[in-house]
Amino acid sequence: MAKAPIITPQAQDFPRWYQDVLAKAELADNGPARGTMVIRPYGYAIWERMVAEVDARIKATGAENAYFPLFIPESYLQREAEHVQGFSPELAVVTHGGGKELEEPLVVRPTSETVIGEFMAKWVQSHRDLPLLLNQWANVVRWELRPRLFLRTTEFLWQEGHTAHATEADAAAYARRILHDVYEDFMVSVLAIPVVVGRKTSDERFAGATNTMTCEALMADGKALQMGTSHELGQNFARAFGIAFQDESGTEQTAWTTSWGVSTRMMGGLVMAHGDDAGLRLPPNVAPIQCVVLLIRDESGAGERAALIAEALRTAGVRVRLDDRVDQSFGRRATEWELKGVPVRVEVGPRDLAEEQAVVVRRDTNTKSTVPLAGLAAAVADLLGAVQSSLLDEARARRDTATVDVSDLDGVVAAGRSGFARVPWPVVRDEGAALRAEALTVRCLQSVDGGVASDEGDDTAAYVARAY
Amino acid sequence: MAKAPIITPQAQDFPRWYQDVLAKAELADNGPARGTMVIRPYGYAIWERMVAEVDARIKATGAENAYFPLFIPESYLQREAEHVQGFSPELAVVTHGGGKELEEPLVVRPTSETVIGEFMAKWVQSHRDLPLLLNQWANVVRWELRPRLFLRTTEFLWQEGHTAHATEADAAAYARRILHDVYEDFMVSVLAIPVVVGRKTSDERFAGATNTMTCEALMADGKALQMGTSHELGQNFARAFGIAFQDESGTEQTAWTTSWGVSTRMMGGLVMAHGDDAGLRLPPNVAPIQCVVLLIRDESGAGERAALIAEALRTAGVRVRLDDRVDQSFGRRATEWELKGVPVRVEVGPRDLAEEQAVVVRRDTNTKSTVPLAGLAAAVADLLGAVQSSLLDEARARRDTATVDVSDLDGVVAAGRSGFARVPWPVVRDEGAALRAEALTVRCLQSVDGGVASDEGDDTAAYVARAY
Repeated sequence: MAKAPIITPQAQDFPRWYQDVLAKAELADNGPARGTMVIRPYGYAIWERMVAEVDARIKATGAENAYFPLFIPESYLQREAEHVQGFSPELAVVTHGGGKELEEPLVVRPTSETVIGEFMAKWVQSHRDLPLLLNQWANVVRWELRPRLFLRTTEFLWQEGHTAHATEADAAAYARRILHDVYEDFMVSVLAIPVVVGRKTSDERFAGATNTMTCEALMADGKALQMGTSHELGQNFARAFGIAFQDESGTEQTAWTTSWGVSTRMMGGLVMAHGDDAGLRLPPNVAPIQCVVLLIRDESGAGERAALIAEALRTAGVRVRLDDRVDQSFGRRATEWELKGVPVRVEVGPRDLAEEQAVVVRRDTNTKSTVPLAGLAAAVADLLGAVQSSLLDEARARRDTATVDVSDLDGVVAAGRSGFARVPWPVVRDEGAALRAEALTVRCLQSVDGGVASDEGDDTAAYVARAY
Repeated sequence: MAKAPIITPQAQDFPRWYQDVLAKAELADNGPARGTMVIRPYGYAIWERMVAEVDARIKATGAENAYFPLFIPESYLQREAEHVQGFSPELAVVTHGGGKELEEPLVVRPTSETVIGEFMAKWVQSHRDLPLLLNQWANVVRWELRPRLFLRTTEFLWQEGHTAHATEADAAAYARRILHDVYEDFMVSVLAIPVVVGRKTSDERFAGATNTMTCEALMADGKALQMGTSHELGQNFARAFGIAFQDESGTEQTAWTTSWGVSTRMMGGLVMAHGDDAGLRLPPNVAPIQCVVLLIRDESGAGERAALIAEALRTAGVRVRLDDRVDQSFGRRATEWELKGVPVRVEVGPRDLAEEQAVVVRRDTNTKSTVPLAGLAAAVADLLGAVQSSLLDEARARRDTATVDVSDLDGVVAAGRSGFARVPWPVVRDEGAALRAEALTVRCLQSVDGGVASDEGDDTAAYVARAY
């Protein structure tokens, strides 16, 4: 069936394709104040699933959720020197409250290290209070001059974890546990997005961190997206805020802290990692609707049968939606669910029902098959598993093809145009200006064995790419 | 066992008792900026359970979650006249962003009627788009001159629902469904708090509403707390923001909207409805930890047995915590769980284990019983059910005793000192000044049959009380 192009093809204009998908799949809209975002119900339902999956993994590490204030006295941000430098240009400032000018302006949190540091200092007294493992789900504000929905918005939603530990080794191990067991595992097994996990160079580190580790994903246009970061903060914040404890011998020690976060930016990553010219393609593990039962025509009791089929799928544990809006054209409705990336469609009409069967369509490959109703639930469950792994395989193959080993700057520039250039770090270490001229950045460093680099040594490998 | 008073007795100083409980049970702390609040992990875990229970009920009505921006252009609030009057003195205003003064100041949302109205106008075209049922979980800011943790804080967390309907009747029915099926049901069956449900007088209405309905609870000190409200907004916001639709005949019609919310204020209500001089008492349905297994001494394998007992309770569906910190005194730990209001404690020591039994303690009544280990899971489940209904019965009995039918102003003043005065509305309709002089307010109006009053007619009954 030939379709009018509802969204701009990726090859024609990728940024416009992205905007079109967000609009047509009803994921998000620009808010009235510059750089703000409205997350529409379908987009928010995806975010809710992300939150549930990430939250469960965070809690499994022993961390607990809490909530800290939106407003932070300006003086707090100034206590840690690098931190204030990093965030000053991005701050939104409240100067008036309750009809009066405030004595001290309040910053709308760009992140909560400082205020959480203050309370950790109160709550930590003894080594018995450590590790203190906190997380919060919250909105934060960082002024954006060139906002893009989900990718860079002035206000965004995220989780920010903040932990204090008795030793540097314990902090380091925990920051890596978050990186791998929470973030990498979530991105790969739920979002079906393969990520390159590595260490940020000192130029790219979080303001105030001693080590920033990152998950970097490759989008369909060959650009990298930073999907989540986990930071070792050394004793910088602990010293600035006085987070100290008595060790077993009664000696006062300064704690070691970490912080780590993922945000609504992952929504943008999900769209750009899997979407195609027909719209979104959602991995079943994160899809709010895994399967839509599409009633073609309500004749010969087909409507009732369709409702029963949907109910049976729900009972089998599938997140299912019944679309019985037969007053709207079937083609238009099918296109809508395609745009929204629902992994599996079950098309139910009187003709197939008479033969006790239905047509089942996979969104990712657009393949159709006719399935006997008796085996439908099992067939749909199988398909959902197949779509999940197939999307991951596809994204991994694209990423691997677009990752090129090179050994000199020319090679980096060529490979970085369409993916990751993997190059010995010494080749690009002092080439910041040359990379910037090509809009390239070092996304992260890996050790020779492909793990997160433990330093910026000569034997590490740099991943270089254009990036969002 | 005689205990030093850890918290101020209620009878001595109720407000101080409240503060002591919040501090000692580690529920919340004052934030650094005036009126802001830190919700500590134990407090937040209770809030997470409230959110899950309310969210499920909201979704059961067909509403979907979305997210709208924190910052609202100042001009938006001015479009609905009553609304801007109602909120002006409470606003926090961002005047600077990204290092510059803003052209138009941004208000930090005190509620989102206006910005959501703007988007409803975009999304609603046809009667097919109605009803549009939206909800969001978010932080909002209303400047507080006399802040009190959970009860009145400059920033608080809440859900705000916003819906648009084709007819006044549909809007009215939906607002009542939220009031009864979501809020009242949640408060009674989960929080074990009996509520008086009624209509606000026109003086007490939400700014811009045509009808505000409320759930009012009685705290242990005889004061009322507004726990949640559901508003019919008539066509006020729809007219101001242009929320219109084509009806079946193709004629353009203005929509009817509602809004409704509950907030972290319910946390304060939970504390003050059930707490006693030993601390919190949590109804099991909202308790993050329903049962703590307290290891008395780790001798003769008691530690391993305690862990197995906790695991068996977890398997039986109980939210259980194992406390095996035997390096701290048993009495101190028992007091801690008492303060935190954990409904059931299972005390496990070598002596009882030798007889294959454990001591089980109910927090609400402080009664102890010895239970054979073989029947422990069933006994704990029974106890949790008993605690849940017993707390509700107790709160209901107190509320009923403190609700006095009176027929003149003197009677209102006398009864209002320690609970609800229920009085024919005409008796107090024009007595606003006299009531204010006694710090009394009309909490709500009920019809003669005890339901929500449909107007402010002569035959309605007013509930009058002091209030938070």
